[in-house]
Amino acid sequence: VDEERLLSDLLPSMWEFRSMSFWRAVFAEFYGTMFFVFFGLGAALRWTTGPHNVLHVAFCFGMAAATLIQSIGHISGGHINPAVTFAYLIGAQMSMFRCFLLHDGPVSGSTCWCCRALRGHTQQHEGKSSTQHALFLVLQLQPGIGLGMATTMEVFLTMQLVICVFAVTDERRNGRMGSAALAIGFSVLMGHLLGMFYTGAGMNPARSFAPAVMVRNFVNHWVYWVGPMIGGAMGALVYDFMLFPRMRGLSERL
Amino acid sequence: VDEERLLSDLLPSMWEFRSMSFWRAVFAEFYGTMFFVFFGLGAALRWTTGPHNVLHVAFCFGMAAATLIQSIGHISGGHINPAVTFAYLIGAQMSMFRCFLLHDGPVSGSTCWCCRALRGHTQQHEGKSSTQHALFLVLQLQPGIGLGMATTMEVFLTMQLVICVFAVTDERRNGRMGSAALAIGFSVLMGHLLGMFYTGAGMNPARSFAPAVMVRNFVNHWVYWVGPMIGGAMGALVYDFMLFPRMRGLSERL
Amino acid sequence: VDEERLLSDLLPSMWEFRSMSFWRAVFAEFYGTMFFVFFGLGAALRWTTGPHNVLHVAFCFGMAAATLIQSIGHISGGHINPAVTFAYLIGAQMSMFRCFLLHDGPVSGSTCWCCRALRGHTQQHEGKSSTQHALFLVLQLQPGIGLGMATTMEVFLTMQLVICVFAVTDERRNGRMGSAALAIGFSVLMGHLLGMFYTGAGMNPARSFAPAVMVRNFVNHWVYWVGPMIGGAMGALVYDFMLFPRMRGLSERL
Amino acid sequence: VDEERLLSDLLPSMWEFRSMSFWRAVFAEFYGTMFFVFFGLGAALRWTTGPHNVLHVAFCFGMAAATLIQSIGHISGGHINPAVTFAYLIGAQMSMFRCFLLHDGPVSGSTCWCCRALRGHTQQHEGKSSTQHALFLVLQLQPGIGLGMATTMEVFLTMQLVICVFAVTDERRNGRMGSAALAIGFSVLMGHLLGMFYTGAGMNPARSFAPAVMVRNFVNHWVYWVGPMIGGAMGALVYDFMLFPRMRGLSERL
Repeated sequence: VDEERLLSDLLPSMWEFRSMSFWRAVFAEFYGTMFFVFFGLGAALRWTTGPHNVLHVAFCFGMAAATLIQSIGHISGGHINPAVTFAYLIGAQMSMFRCFLLHDGPVSGSTCWCCRALRGHTQQHEGKSSTQHALFLVLQLQPGIGLGMATTMEVFLTMQLVICVFAVTDERRNGRMGSAALAIGFSVLMGHLLGMFYTGAGMNPARSFAPAVMVRNFVNHWVYWVGPMIGGAMGALVYDFMLFPRMRGLSERL
Repeated sequence: VDEERLLSDLLPSMWEFRSMSFWRAVFAEFYGTMFFVFFGLGAALRWTTGPHNVLHVAFCFGMAAATLIQSIGHISGGHINPAVTFAYLIGAQMSMFRCFLLHDGPVSGSTCWCCRALRGHTQQHEGKSSTQHALFLVLQLQPGIGLGMATTMEVFLTMQLVICVFAVTDERRNGRMGSAALAIGFSVLMGHLLGMFYTGAGMNPARSFAPAVMVRNFVNHWVYWVGPMIGGAMGALVYDFMLFPRMRGLSERL
Repeated sequence: VDEERLLSDLLPSMWEFRSMSFWRAVFAEFYGTMFFVFFGLGAALRWTTGPHNVLHVAFCFGMAAATLIQSIGHISGGHINPAVTFAYLIGAQMSMFRCFLLHDGPVSGSTCWCCRALRGHTQQHEGKSSTQHALFLVLQLQPGIGLGMATTMEVFLTMQLVICVFAVTDERRNGRMGSAALAIGFSVLMGHLLGMFYTGAGMNPARSFAPAVMVRNFVNHWVYWVGPMIGGAMGALVYDFMLFPRMRGLSERL
Repeated sequence: VDEERLLSDLLPSMWEFRSMSFWRAVFAEFYGTMFFVFFGLGAALRWTTGPHNVLHVAFCFGMAAATLIQSIGHISGGHINPAVTFAYLIGAQMSMFRCFLLHDGPVSGSTCWCCRALRGHTQQHEGKSSTQHALFLVLQLQPGIGLGMATTMEVFLTMQLVICVFAVTDERRNGRMGSAALAIGFSVLMGHLLGMFYTGAGMNPARSFAPAVMVRNFVNHWVYWVGPMIGGAMGALVYDFMLFPRMRGLSERL
């Protein structure tokens, strides 16, 4: 985001260039989300439930986030997550138009694409067991977890992720920070290490939406949209108003 | 800590600003400790004892420390551990008033909060097995470990953590250091990989205190306060007087 | 690559020096590839199939890539992978002559050397079971994976690796990037966490070629050359033309 | 090493200061080696042989190296390994007197201390099974591994470690390197992931020596001294003469 904003500030009249940069960012988010969902779900698809599953799948999601944010962070910001995009919108770091077009579009698109690819795989090669496998991918509340607790868990998981994202991309900060992409990747890893026992670790509506569409199973699906969105908004508000306030006018925010 | 001290040095008269910054730090420590305890205990709660438990829970605690210190380190220093705060007090990097109010308050508060949340969960959804689960969270000496050895182990675990914290936040140092938060996270991870076989890996009185209050089980609980406090003080003294001495007057120290 | 190009620009007439630097890079790639294949295959050789195998071998390959790229990245660029070299050729960051001599030569040589070393080991110490063990090292399609899907998987695995390599070595970028070697290592780790269930995770023709030569088993071996090469080329084209275009003339490209 | 050499160059007459800095470095190495051996062996002591053991112990050694080098690297260089010290001597980055006194002394001392501590533990709390446990700590060739292969393996393991250490501490290099301590830690981790199946992963004579003294079992013990020393020397020579030559006179080297 930084480089692009800088360029567009320096060259305000080069609309053609600005437009190309914008569409490159759209494509980068498309690429990032597609591969994030593909890697995480692909690893989960071949596993049956078990203790290994958790460590393995958590590392796969975490390292996928780290690698893809490292790859596209300097081009589009590397959200690969509608909840993070929503948090940036709440935090007034992105206009609503840009937010909608840049991130939610590619996210949905890549999700559908990935979903179709995986469905093709399961139908073709495993016959009737495909539904069973695919059901495993659909995020479901674990036994003994109620709707209220699941939503709260999703709120907390997404909140810590968004606060971490805001902290490592905060341009007012300097010091011994190391890699922003790696820090976000470890935040995703930690979220899965905890959340998989409770809600399956959504944290990302794009990741939850793809398998739900795939097997047309939307039982309790709203939890994986409401929780991350509330968590993202809370994270943005907590970071921007309580932890490290930005002095911005309300008009700039919307 | 650095930014805030710098600001308060530059603007000594802006008491209002200084006060807001101070309370933001209090809130940041509250947030950090709450989530650290929540993630670590939440992951441990759903596991039964077993070899996987160790690797999984150790990663969860380590990555939680890395993520939360990355998130709040530039706001409050990111202690999330009364033993580390005590070490800073011994190392004369923090006044006693600030130390007490800034860190021990939030730590206790967040611990109690987290404790209540977890208790609610276990009572509501798992009935009588809640006590059994919660007992698992209470740090206990492993079979064959005496009180003396347990205390020594806690001293060593906390000492290496505090020396690592002091080394990576030492403003006299520069070079190829990478991420301070990640280094501390890996130090926590290493401590759990060893300590869980001996004492359950306290290293942090806030983490030990919460489940003990929860099930009102204070058997050998003093080990998890005395060990980390001695270890923190020893770490601060070893780093500040033997490894890399600071030239400070005694008056400045207290 | 940077330092050497800089030096050769500054001292264009010191052919002797340039030549020494060139042959040092050849040796560095030889060393890097030899140890990468040696560590990865050595760890895999002692394991039987099982869930641990995946996490363990994936970490071994990933950390080997991180360590060796850290060791030789400033000398030769640290490709240790013909697919990455091919991607640099497509991306016009390397002349065809240099590409061929610098990378494909050492890669083949080190592969053969490593292959001989491992064969000696298995034959000498394990008798008839050596073939069985060695067969495990040969990358094979997992049950239920067709040729088309396997090639697609290799394309995707290599594509994300090459885009990550291009992103972290992009000299037009700055910011909170952390360690380039570690980012590439985690990309390799993630690729193995997913790919081992489908194709065994080639991503690197040198890694696939060595055991195939060793046991003279070339069944479906073309998949592990065609997939990574297409993936490398696609990664280079996607990064250089779509994500973050370079303004270079076509003549400079070939 | 850098800071101290700089200081002693700037203030050549302040012998007192130089002496204090020297003895601080001695103490730092003592601390580092003691805790490295303590953490690695402590984790291994409580485990029986099994696949988890490898991943767990490898992480414990690797993260211990990363944390302790992060803690003392700016004070004494953070070798915590006689083989690395020997490599620095071969690479002419350290005088023979300093090398001997600074590193081999503390290493032996800390090893003996740690050894006594562990022996006390096993004798006191586990009775007759202590010998059995302690025997597990003694590095032994794995079944089917000959002396020649074991030595070669130790040479390779130490060589990659030393080349990584030399590369990340090379002051002629700059760029996207990230944390030197973490890179070395991952190199140790990788070495254990491979080496534990063959020789138990020595790589460090101090780590091998302590348990051998403890149970007075020196069968094949020379392998764990000869291998790392040859590997360290080869690593230093390969890095300094072939990969990235330093222009130093022979007199400066000895």
